[in-house]
Amino acid sequence: MLGYAFMGKAHSNALRKIAYMTWPPPLEPRLVAIAGRDEQAVSEAAERYGFERWTTKWEEVVSEPEVQLFENLGPNALHAGPTIAAADAGKHVLCEKPLGRDAAESYDIWSRVAATGVKHMCAFNYRFVPAVRLARELIEAGELGDLRHFRGRYLQDWGDTGAEVWRFEKTASGSGALGDLAAHVIDLARYLVGEIEAVSGFLRTFVPGREVDDAVEAVVEFESGTVGTLEATRLALGRRNAFQWEINGTKGSLAFDMERLNELQVFRADGDRARGFKTVLVSETDHPFWEYWWPPGHIIGWGDTFVHELHHLLTAIAEDTDVGPHGATFEDGYRAAEVCDAIVRSGESEKRETIEYRTLPEVVRAN
Amino acid sequence: MLGYAFMGKAHSNALRKIAYMTWPPPLEPRLVAIAGRDEQAVSEAAERYGFERWTTKWEEVVSEPEVQLFENLGPNALHAGPTIAAADAGKHVLCEKPLGRDAAESYDIWSRVAATGVKHMCAFNYRFVPAVRLARELIEAGELGDLRHFRGRYLQDWGDTGAEVWRFEKTASGSGALGDLAAHVIDLARYLVGEIEAVSGFLRTFVPGREVDDAVEAVVEFESGTVGTLEATRLALGRRNAFQWEINGTKGSLAFDMERLNELQVFRADGDRARGFKTVLVSETDHPFWEYWWPPGHIIGWGDTFVHELHHLLTAIAEDTDVGPHGATFEDGYRAAEVCDAIVRSGESEKRETIEYRTLPEVVRAN
Amino acid sequence: MLGYAFMGKAHSNALRKIAYMTWPPPLEPRLVAIAGRDEQAVSEAAERYGFERWTTKWEEVVSEPEVQLFENLGPNALHAGPTIAAADAGKHVLCEKPLGRDAAESYDIWSRVAATGVKHMCAFNYRFVPAVRLARELIEAGELGDLRHFRGRYLQDWGDTGAEVWRFEKTASGSGALGDLAAHVIDLARYLVGEIEAVSGFLRTFVPGREVDDAVEAVVEFESGTVGTLEATRLALGRRNAFQWEINGTKGSLAFDMERLNELQVFRADGDRARGFKTVLVSETDHPFWEYWWPPGHIIGWGDTFVHELHHLLTAIAEDTDVGPHGATFEDGYRAAEVCDAIVRSGESEKRETIEYRTLPEVVRAN
Amino acid sequence: MLGYAFMGKAHSNALRKIAYMTWPPPLEPRLVAIAGRDEQAVSEAAERYGFERWTTKWEEVVSEPEVQLFENLGPNALHAGPTIAAADAGKHVLCEKPLGRDAAESYDIWSRVAATGVKHMCAFNYRFVPAVRLARELIEAGELGDLRHFRGRYLQDWGDTGAEVWRFEKTASGSGALGDLAAHVIDLARYLVGEIEAVSGFLRTFVPGREVDDAVEAVVEFESGTVGTLEATRLALGRRNAFQWEINGTKGSLAFDMERLNELQVFRADGDRARGFKTVLVSETDHPFWEYWWPPGHIIGWGDTFVHELHHLLTAIAEDTDVGPHGATFEDGYRAAEVCDAIVRSGESEKRETIEYRTLPEVVRAN
Repeated sequence: MLGYAFMGKAHSNALRKIAYMTWPPPLEPRLVAIAGRDEQAVSEAAERYGFERWTTKWEEVVSEPEVQLFENLGPNALHAGPTIAAADAGKHVLCEKPLGRDAAESYDIWSRVAATGVKHMCAFNYRFVPAVRLARELIEAGELGDLRHFRGRYLQDWGDTGAEVWRFEKTASGSGALGDLAAHVIDLARYLVGEIEAVSGFLRTFVPGREVDDAVEAVVEFESGTVGTLEATRLALGRRNAFQWEINGTKGSLAFDMERLNELQVFRADGDRARGFKTVLVSETDHPFWEYWWPPGHIIGWGDTFVHELHHLLTAIAEDTDVGPHGATFEDGYRAAEVCDAIVRSGESEKRETIEYRTLPEVVRAN
Repeated sequence: MLGYAFMGKAHSNALRKIAYMTWPPPLEPRLVAIAGRDEQAVSEAAERYGFERWTTKWEEVVSEPEVQLFENLGPNALHAGPTIAAADAGKHVLCEKPLGRDAAESYDIWSRVAATGVKHMCAFNYRFVPAVRLARELIEAGELGDLRHFRGRYLQDWGDTGAEVWRFEKTASGSGALGDLAAHVIDLARYLVGEIEAVSGFLRTFVPGREVDDAVEAVVEFESGTVGTLEATRLALGRRNAFQWEINGTKGSLAFDMERLNELQVFRADGDRARGFKTVLVSETDHPFWEYWWPPGHIIGWGDTFVHELHHLLTAIAEDTDVGPHGATFEDGYRAAEVCDAIVRSGESEKRETIEYRTLPEVVRAN
Repeated sequence: MLGYAFMGKAHSNALRKIAYMTWPPPLEPRLVAIAGRDEQAVSEAAERYGFERWTTKWEEVVSEPEVQLFENLGPNALHAGPTIAAADAGKHVLCEKPLGRDAAESYDIWSRVAATGVKHMCAFNYRFVPAVRLARELIEAGELGDLRHFRGRYLQDWGDTGAEVWRFEKTASGSGALGDLAAHVIDLARYLVGEIEAVSGFLRTFVPGREVDDAVEAVVEFESGTVGTLEATRLALGRRNAFQWEINGTKGSLAFDMERLNELQVFRADGDRARGFKTVLVSETDHPFWEYWWPPGHIIGWGDTFVHELHHLLTAIAEDTDVGPHGATFEDGYRAAEVCDAIVRSGESEKRETIEYRTLPEVVRAN
Repeated sequence: MLGYAFMGKAHSNALRKIAYMTWPPPLEPRLVAIAGRDEQAVSEAAERYGFERWTTKWEEVVSEPEVQLFENLGPNALHAGPTIAAADAGKHVLCEKPLGRDAAESYDIWSRVAATGVKHMCAFNYRFVPAVRLARELIEAGELGDLRHFRGRYLQDWGDTGAEVWRFEKTASGSGALGDLAAHVIDLARYLVGEIEAVSGFLRTFVPGREVDDAVEAVVEFESGTVGTLEATRLALGRRNAFQWEINGTKGSLAFDMERLNELQVFRADGDRARGFKTVLVSETDHPFWEYWWPPGHIIGWGDTFVHELHHLLTAIAEDTDVGPHGATFEDGYRAAEVCDAIVRSGESEKRETIEYRTLPEVVRAN
């Protein structure tokens, strides 16, 4: 593992829980080594989470023979180097989102890692929220009919504070709300609705002296004809982690809010006289991921989505199955970056920007 | 009055209630005459609502000496002619929204009516929802600080049905969701946030054979620097009359949903440890318009907003005061139309469109 | 009409709206005369609502030959005398709730009025909330199966203020939250679930010097075997008009809150994987009372429930049909009073009190 | 540990998480031994959760010298014997709720364990929900003023199913919804409001052939003068884990629903014109327990409350501090049982039952 802060905690916790919550586990995680910049912090993190070794040099983790899976949870600027190096060393890799700081860097990571043949996952953990997975299943089963609208927004409100400094630095992060929050919206839009074809919009920086964007506003068009809006901001006071989305189809609608992540709003145009959105507490025995948890109605937390995510990756490794379509691959990470880049371009050109997705060269795909 | 259908009912009801609910009334309405195309329907409406006379020729209402206020509630295509004629005849005029079918027609109505010196009001009734007025008061008092975000959407779901045929006809309506729903969003955006400077977006028609748009998607930039999104659709299944908006400022946030029109969500960044949105039931004795109604907690309905609206207009007539800023004037109707036109243009040009608002010629303003 | 305050306004408004909102009306109301104690107030009320005559002597209204329906909206202490006198004079009668100040007085009113053969209605207006009627229809259609639980509470919070003084006086009111609020809960419990067989509970007065109860707490048993709780208070800060109830059956559940009176929460145990309560906006064309109003989603207000109530009574008069079961008769008013009395007795005896309902003597029923 | 099912999983998970989520931990838990009836199940549980040894004889756990804390998560019938034996052997003890199957058994457990001087905790985990602790802090700080009303209900809906058979057996469980659910309501009522003085109510069994109660209905009076209702049922269809309570005081109100356990509704009568309940997402850095978790807005799950509970107990052991008032001691377990017994008595006597709480004999307290 590279990184010991917020994400390091979330992933370490998940790795430890897999062993007994998802029983029997696909693989029993062993926390071999952790790397981080600050010696005291990384050594304490190693002790805290039970890593066998720690180091301030990520290269030592990457070259460690006993490591089979490398988790890159470092700042965005550190995604490319260590991830590619780990894959080159034959490690399976997980990289936090956004994959790279822009589409070019993301493509580079994807193509170089794909060439090695290891498993790769971009850690869009919200695909592993039970309500999100249930939404996907309902859509795939045709219960919404053809999709007409997607409206997604990720609203937070810590942007006026001084927290998490690196997220405000251009070099370390690449972008602000765009890569941090809008990337999540884009990924779920792609996961639930399909590929995005064009965007019009812009970034906006409100706070004086800030290097990166505070907010993103865009209209989106999907290849399927679905249309909608896409927003992200760190400046929506009162919204702490409000990743909200709504999808309207020809047969029904779904709505969601991450602040109530155990709930899915479901509307079906089924002719019932009692017509309205259902508040579904996604915690039934036949609901996604619920086999690992508690009796119905006993909700799970945000941190638990990482258990699902890593369980999925370990299963793919153990059984040599695909990470996609439910796990986000590096291709998904790259594609999200293309949409982000298109919004940046649109803000500069003041035009609608269509998106062209690159594929891998023949030689890599043959791998 | 011209028109006896949905809007005719809403306005007739309001005119009758003003006399005793808003006591003492600024003026006692007298329902002199009503016009409509269908002889049987208009005669029944006259009997039903208590109009003294009816006619199939709106010209007869306009020329009727005893008429002092002309309410134009006809289809959009009939907004210009009768409204201008009534003003030319010295009647005060109220015209339903959208004022004209596009900005040019709207400007024509505005400028010609303004030249006569009568009172004019464009019937954006949602300005007269108590929660909306309270929102305006909170914003004006600086309780939200500087505004950063506006996100407004007007979601309905009857677009697949055959109801209200004229609203699907290009000639009669001018547009679909744009003039019908998005115009409301634009008007409240202007009322609560300020002038809109630029938009990027497009219209979309989903239902085959339909002449007008089913949906509108846009990003907006205000002159003040506030940014946001603006949507309207007739195809969001499960959303019956969901005119939802949220505003985020540097000190707080507000959120609203017309399906719960008696409630306003209020967030204040006041350092209170118990941090969150308040659900304010806007029905206190010191809340806007509440002097006319019931004890706190006894909610009002959608139809009651017209009582406030017409009470406001009658007051302006009685006391010769301005219709604005709380009432929408024909200038407000025209400005909303400019924003609508800009979205149409943006959809065609695939570019960000800035908006230039026309003013009246000197000679008219001098009036 | 007797009374010109809060209830006078609500009923006058309804009588005026019936003529055109419920078209064609069963009868065209004519506001003949209004009585009240304060000469200036009653004369102004007459002018305001359009009564042809006013008087400070209710006897003059009761004896007025042109009056066909007498509405008694006076303080509780004035329910018996004028109502009985009006019925004796051959007028149909509506009396606000609670019918009498206790069961004995209520029985007296009922039996003496029933003996005259006029139509009688106890104004439990909440039976005429569309969501409540829809609830009744769903229950009658068996959609909830056998009912197991009823939990009803009517929470208000003005009890610390000095408003509506007569409601705090023992002689004028008979009781406090009991007759004012709990009576509503009891009536809807009876309307939706069935007869109440026994109660255990008590009244409580919190505010020093107060003559009447501030709160009521009880457990209830219905004849059908359904069990539950029943509460009312004027001291639940933050609850303005929160008449909340929930019913659980063997097939489903319903829940309601008067502060959102256009909504009904509906749960069905139908095996749907998307399991949860539906928020039904009761405003569809096939929903109760909706034929009189607006397109779906355009909500009505508290005051509009009186339009339904009086429309129902006028229909019963015009067509000589029964006021029940949807309208509350004086028998319903009496039965609610028996339950109220039983709670008072239980508080004193500290025992479970069973309720025996009196019937009319043969001679009256024969009428 | 005794027990490997639902509660065994919840406690094992918590014990494992304490070591790294609550850093540095008060004590590092070591899972020494687990006992259970079914050999295969208990051996698998041991492997799964990492217990060093397993046995089908709880006596072996109790006598194991290396065990310092004994967690009794077995069926209610097995609470007394092993818990007392463990305490006699000098182990600190945690026992799941209800402590005993009635007040007598509970008192016996409490008094015998208290005599040994070990730490004892009755596992009312809902005291360790952040929103519940925040509620307690607000009440203690006087922000609600004097408390007038408590209304608590615990609604579940699995009572028609065949799940968890032992919970339906009289001998194994002692009672049904009473000890399972109502005990939770009583404990939080005591924790938040204070001691209960009297109850009137009854139990009800709806399902034919069932040995225990399905539902509990009661009115309650607290020593402080607060009054309210108390319900529990396994038959409220659509309510999965709806432990809902509301408290009204002279200065404000609080409301809560376990299905949204991260939220607290807070009302303050502070004269603010924007008056209403705040939806507080209890996840701020200055909120209870939040130091252990994630950034604000990233909610926790039901299972995480056990981390707080056991962290509290381990702290009490490590620092030799009291388990109360925040942790429930066996005295709290006993007192809840007295209230449960009083409701049973009230159902049989059909009277209001006052509650007398026993204290420990001098000799024990001296310990």
